[in-house]
Order: sequence, then structure tokens, then C-alpha cells
Amino acid sequence: MNLPFEILATDGTARRGHLATAHGHVDTPAFMPVGTLGTVKGLLPEQVAASGAQILLGNTYHLMLRPGAERVARLGGLRRFMDWKGPILTDSGGFQVMSLAKLRKLDEQGVTFKSHLDGSLHHLTPERSIEIQDLLDANITMQLDECIGLPAPRREAERAMHLSLRWAERCKKVFRERAGYGLFGIVQGGVDKALRKESALALKDMSFDGYAVGGLAVGEPQEVMLEVLDFTLPLLPADRPRYLMGVGTPDDLVKAVMRGVDMFDCVLPTRSGRTARGYTRRGVINLRNARHRDDPRSIDPDCPCPTCSRWSRAYVHHLFRAEEMLGSILLTLHNLYYYQEVMAGLRKAIEAGKLEDFATAFFEQQATGDLPPLG
Amino acid sequence: MNLPFEILATDGTARRGHLATAHGHVDTPAFMPVGTLGTVKGLLPEQVAASGAQILLGNTYHLMLRPGAERVARLGGLRRFMDWKGPILTDSGGFQVMSLAKLRKLDEQGVTFKSHLDGSLHHLTPERSIEIQDLLDANITMQLDECIGLPAPRREAERAMHLSLRWAERCKKVFRERAGYGLFGIVQGGVDKALRKESALALKDMSFDGYAVGGLAVGEPQEVMLEVLDFTLPLLPADRPRYLMGVGTPDDLVKAVMRGVDMFDCVLPTRSGRTARGYTRRGVINLRNARHRDDPRSIDPDCPCPTCSRWSRAYVHHLFRAEEMLGSILLTLHNLYYYQEVMAGLRKAIEAGKLEDFATAFFEQQATGDLPPLG
Repeated sequence: MNLPFEILATDGTARRGHLATAHGHVDTPAFMPVGTLGTVKGLLPEQVAASGAQILLGNTYHLMLRPGAERVARLGGLRRFMDWKGPILTDSGGFQVMSLAKLRKLDEQGVTFKSHLDGSLHHLTPERSIEIQDLLDANITMQLDECIGLPAPRREAERAMHLSLRWAERCKKVFRERAGYGLFGIVQGGVDKALRKESALALKDMSFDGYAVGGLAVGEPQEVMLEVLDFTLPLLPADRPRYLMGVGTPDDLVKAVMRGVDMFDCVLPTRSGRTARGYTRRGVINLRNARHRDDPRSIDPDCPCPTCSRWSRAYVHHLFRAEEMLGSILLTLHNLYYYQEVMAGLRKAIEAGKLEDFATAFFEQQATGDLPPLG
Repeated sequence: MNLPFEILATDGTARRGHLATAHGHVDTPAFMPVGTLGTVKGLLPEQVAASGAQILLGNTYHLMLRPGAERVARLGGLRRFMDWKGPILTDSGGFQVMSLAKLRKLDEQGVTFKSHLDGSLHHLTPERSIEIQDLLDANITMQLDECIGLPAPRREAERAMHLSLRWAERCKKVFRERAGYGLFGIVQGGVDKALRKESALALKDMSFDGYAVGGLAVGEPQEVMLEVLDFTLPLLPADRPRYLMGVGTPDDLVKAVMRGVDMFDCVLPTRSGRTARGYTRRGVINLRNARHRDDPRSIDPDCPCPTCSRWSRAYVHHLFRAEEMLGSILLTLHNLYYYQEVMAGLRKAIEAGKLEDFATAFFEQQATGDLPPLG
């Protein structure tokens, strides 16, 4: 196997694993911060690494448009370009073509679209997506798929799933196999059990280095997402990593890990960090809220992150009110630490066989609400 | 003396000194980065300190409006609020009232103005300015003065200078003397030799802990500024630090240090860092320029800063084109390192009695222009 994956412990359907890449290993279940354009917005790579993140996600769609995959390759690949030392996973570009590009036209061959930046015309095929991800030097490459929104008619979900399977084969064919690098297939099929099953089994037959569940976190309620996981995950090979794309809240992460997901990515901790939303043990708080104006306490008094160790809610509030960059930086930092701490807690709980206890305590604490105001 | 200042070496009229405050010492000549609103924009305090900065400047006008001086005091003072470990100098608020506030009305008592943020009415007197700076816990407090633009009629410069002298006395009267803290007077008088002399001698008679030259860097040519320094600095007590407010470019710093200035502050390295202008040994370059798009070289190949050690011009260019925060962060960091390196070079040259040689080499290198494009 080019991407060795070892399951170290299980607890129910949850798994604690170790994924080895050419640029370092990943302890799973793992959360991958999103570095869309070759940077996790506002942070230096070492700040991201210090939060506990071992692997980053880069976006093929954004990077192919700017600065361009060939340019990144000439500059030594994405890792060298941004000076991130660890492994990188890139998406295929398909999802963002559908959500961001203009005048897109999809056919059997691939998708033609106009850049949201300058209107220039681009063509993305399964083969080109793999080539771009190779140029970026991604350790984990994702197949090109067609991701549709939910709810969707069954016929539409079926058509997109079948197309994604044909694209999976084409991706597999051109992917350059090498040690420490791998290609993941993506299960599609909307919310339909039979379609998901068909997709999962077909991908399994093709033998990928890992399997993503795609087409979720696209507007459906959490229980729908969890139900799809419940009937999809058992169909995937147990010895390969499972990646739930674009998910989610801390609550989503805990529930998906309990069902057997190994990897996640989401813009929530970083995007929220720029819009003054802080994730804490007691739920989400808005740092722009006037209640924090005079509060000398940390965002989360139990958090060991640099932000909570050194700065008050009052200071972070002030920075957001004054529209100072440092507000986004400090809160993004905190949110990433918090996400990584949830993941570390999950890993430890699985090792100890105490995942149920962990989850119960987690949900209870999340439900308590923010600290009461100071007398 | 509450603010001990020792001259360790001189070279011509230039001085190499050591200023002791309650929160650490400052090696002079020194450049103070500007942290307008309780943050050097985009950087953590330790990044600013790592650049070599030993003292920061905070802006009374901005901080009194938001978050408010009393609030900062309740939160432990500006140092604790922003977690900067070293000394802080605050300006008096006068300069920014004149440049930013709306509907300002100045009389003998002080200045009444409307906030540029919300139109609220504020009153700033010499006594209130000192009180605010005390609440912020500034190690170096500046007297309130009236700073006029240049060119200005002599009569106007004389009126403002006299008012500033009367305000200097009122500031001195209410300043709370204590070890490790000091109050600086500000010489005014426009470009008029007699007025500058009258101002300098009157302030000297009042005995301040240091003396600033104000009313420069307000639009006049460099030679006018240097001429004012030439006839003003010799009138100031040799055993007290001399601070040239709001200056300047690296070229300004070298020329002013040669004339005997000990301290500087300026937004240039930080503001330029946010507008893609990088200061280098070979002059200023614009990182948005397409010539850097494919350039794997550092902004300044001789620079030991984190940005130049780890990232290419191509990467910084990409970040600015993509409007990523990290572009401003990396370039601000580089600019601050470069400014501090110029200051360290000046200090070393004065110690060695080789300031002329240093300056000659500096001006020559600055004139060479940017690196030629790669073959």
C-alpha cells in the first residue's frame, strides 16, 4: 500500500488510526484545516501546526486559477510554496466549480467553466484534475466527482453518481502511483440507500487508497447526514481511511467519528474566526457582542491555546470592533486549537474504550451555554 | 532621574544610548513600531519583539475613543491588554485630533472635537491627555501640543508654539512622577529658527525627561526637515533622549541619526507592509508587480527575517493578488525587521566610530535598485 493505514484501536464503530504519508503521519480521527489559496487565512504554517493539525487541505479550483498549478509546480509544489512541512490533501476542484464558477457546462468529458475572478474559460476533466493535484504535490488526491445539492430528485442523484463512478475510473487510470501518496474515491448517491450502496461497492472494487463520503454538508439536516453515514460507512473497506468531506461543527465531528469517520475538513473554524464566532466547550459565542466589552476572562477559560492563555474577551472584542486583523488571527487560532482538542479527545477516548462517556460529557457541556456575566 | 539615559558612545553629533524604563531598556537610536489601537496591525507582540523592537508607540486619540482609556485601565493597562512585555510610549492625541477628528475647536483650554467614528463629542486638555496616558500606563508620556502643517505663516507657527509651551507647563504640573516613567516636551516653531530656539530653550528650562521635535514630517521636503534638525538639536540638553516624531523612511532615519536623533516612530514599515511595498537594501519594491510572479527569490536575499528565510517573492505576490491576510503579515514582518536592522547597523557604526562609512555604503546600496530579473 502506498498510503499505509493502521487501525490502532476501535470503540464500537469508531476507529483510532495512523495514516502514513511521504511527508509525515496523520493520527485519525483527524481534522484538516482548509488552506484554500496556499494559506490558512491569517496564520503562519507553524501556528497551524502548533494547534495540532497534521494535514492541510488545499483547493484545486482556487489554486488552478491563481497562481496556477504549473506555476506552483515550478516553485516547488504547494508544500514548498507555502512552507507547510506536513502532508497535504487537495480536493478535485469539482465542488467549487459547481458553487463558485460562472457559466459552467458539464458533460461526459468534464466541466467547462468561466473563472469567478476574470471570466477566463477553463476546462476540468478527471485527467486534468489529477494532473493539477500532482503538480501541487498533494499527498492525497481526490477523484473528480459531480457533487449535487440536497434535496435532489433521485434520478439526478443517480445520474451524478454514475458519472462520478466513470470519472473515478478515469482518475484511477492516470493517477501516478508512488509511495506516500494516494488517491481517494468519493461515494455519491444523495440520500438514497441503494444509490450509495452501488457507489460504495463500485469504488471498493476499483480499490482506492481511501474513500470519501461526498455530497453531504450541502444543506441537509444533521440527522439526514448521519443516516447516510449509517448506511454508507459499513459498505466501505474497514482497512482504508474514510473521509467525510466539508464537515462540520464540533457536534458533527463527534457524531461522525462515533459512526466510523476518520478524516474531516471544514472552513468553519477558520471562517468563523474571521466573523467573530468562537467555538468553546460551552458552545459558540460571538465576540462582537457587547457583553464581552469589559470581560477580562478568556474566550474559553479551560482552553490552553495561546489566545486564551494571554488575551481577554475584552481585547478580542476590541480588535473585532476596531476591525483589526489580529482579531481574526487570534480567534482563528483559538478555533483551530479547539477543533484539534476535540479530535485529540476523541482519539484518546477511542483508545480507552470510553467514547460513549466522552460524547455524553461533550454534549452536556456544549449545552450549558456561555459563562454567566461577571457580577 | 526617573528615566535614566546613558550615552554609551558618540560619533560626530550622533549618539549611541541606553534608556531605562520600568519595563525594560531601549537601545538608542531606536525605531518604535506603531501600535495604534493596541496592536501592531496583523502581528502578535512576540513577532514585533523578535524583529528587534524594544518599545512600541500607542495612539491616545484612537485608544481614548475605542476601547476608552478607563476601560483599558480596568483591564490592567495597555501593556497587559495587548500583552506587550516591553515599554510603551503614547502620543498626546493632539496630532490625530487635528488630522482625523471632525469639527474640532481649539482654544486656550484644549481642543473639543467630534469622533471620526461616531460623531460623539470629546474634550482633550493637557490635563486629560496626561490622565489618559497614565490610564494606559505609558512609560513615556508626551505633552499635548498643537501641531500645524507646513508650510505655515510665521505668525501661525508662533501662536501654536506659544500655546504648546503653555500646555507643556500644564502637562508637567499634573504628570505623576515615578521611577521608570517619564514625560517628554515637544519643540514646535515650524521652520523658523528663532521660534524653534525659543521653544527648545523654554522646554529645557522646564526640565523634561526627554525632548521631541514635533511639527515635522507634515509634508515638507526632507532637506527642510534636516535643516530644522540642524539648528534645533544642538539647543537640547545633550544628556536627554531626543525623539523625532512621525519619521520616516530608512533614508530619513540614517540622516536624522547622524544629526543626533535618538528615537523615531513611523507607520511606514507597517502601513507599507499592507500595501505591498517592501523596504529592501536596494530600495523599495512593490510586491504586487507582475515581475515578482514567478520569482523564487526572497524579497531581500540578504535579509535574515522569517519572511525572507522561508518564502519567495512569488508567494508574497500571490498572497497580495489573492488579498490574503498573510501577505500583509509577511511583508509587515519583513519591513519591521529591515527597519530594526538599519537601526542596529547605525548603533554598531556609532560604537565603532564608523558612521560615515556606514551611511555611505547605505546610500550607495539603496541607489542600486532592485535585483535584475532572473534570466
